Amino acid sequence: MTPSVGARDLERRMADTLAMLSTPAVDVWVATASADGAPHLVPVSLAWVDERVVIAVEASSVTARNLGASGVARLAVGPTRDVVMIDAVLERTVDVTDGEELAKAYVDQADWDPRRSTGYVFLVLRPIRVQAWREANEIPGRTLMRDGSWLVERHDEGETA
Amino acid sequence: MTPSVGARDLERRMADTLAMLSTPAVDVWVATASADGAPHLVPVSLAWVDERVVIAVEASSVTARNLGASGVARLAVGPTRDVVMIDAVLERTVDVTDGEELAKAYVDQADWDPRRSTGYVFLVLRPIRVQAWREANEIPGRTLMRDGSWLVERHDEGETA
Repeated sequence: MTPSVGARDLERRMADTLAMLSTPAVDVWVATASADGAPHLVPVSLAWVDERVVIAVEASSVTARNLGASGVARLAVGPTRDVVMIDAVLERTVDVTDGEELAKAYVDQADWDPRRSTGYVFLVLRPIRVQAWREANEIPGRTLMRDGSWLVERHDEGETA
Repeated sequence: MTPSVGARDLERRMADTLAMLSTPAVDVWVATASADGAPHLVPVSLAWVDERVVIAVEASSVTARNLGASGVARLAVGPTRDVVMIDAVLERTVDVTDGEELAKAYVDQADWDPRRSTGYVFLVLRPIRVQAWREANEIPGRTLMRDGSWLVERHDEGETA
């Protein structure tokens, strides 16, 4: 695992992370666990809406049930050697037919419309910790958000976190 | 999520799955959970040795501790739209300096040697269920292994499962 390039600085990682989360039709790996410690993992489409990760899953799915019970998930976006890892909490669950504004934002980024299927809900996940790294040389300084607050200046909006 | 190509048949998925698991320097997403239901997820290198998924992690890592306690993991190999999902159980834990044959097999496929670091163990994971799909049209027929047995003929070795 000899790194193929030099480590990015925090500002670069921050910009790359926000760009990745905003990519059209990007997917996210969602890891959850049942109350008795059975791990679950699925890939689903992601929308990045108002600093939240929004996914759409069947209300009866293992992911929805685990998140409803535990309230926590660990998410990964990107390939294994250019990853954004997000520890998140469930902020709210919205039936896809109930939240028009949320549905519009989701459909704008994702490449499908869950309102055309039945039984789907939006899970709105609030990031608590965000880390980004490519290879072993980027493990130091990989934390971009801690306890829900960004650690680095936001150049995309001209404001500080 | 309109599928871009037709669904593969089971034999094709089986061959693709074994090829993916045998790819040099391939990575695997490893989802585990703590006893109280906190999900964990990390990307690590994978070796496919004697029908087992072998990973190398620090003995003190969350992944090693979760697996040591629960014995179960859910694994994903490949990108989100060409995925092999594996539910697996921990078969054995081997200090990287103890298992020469295992270490050789691991290093042959992975692109690093954990014996050059300290505190690493091999976790040997036995697949219980294996599923492979690319897009929504491949959800039917995605199961290739159930209860530890392959459901489709193995063309790679000229034998049936």
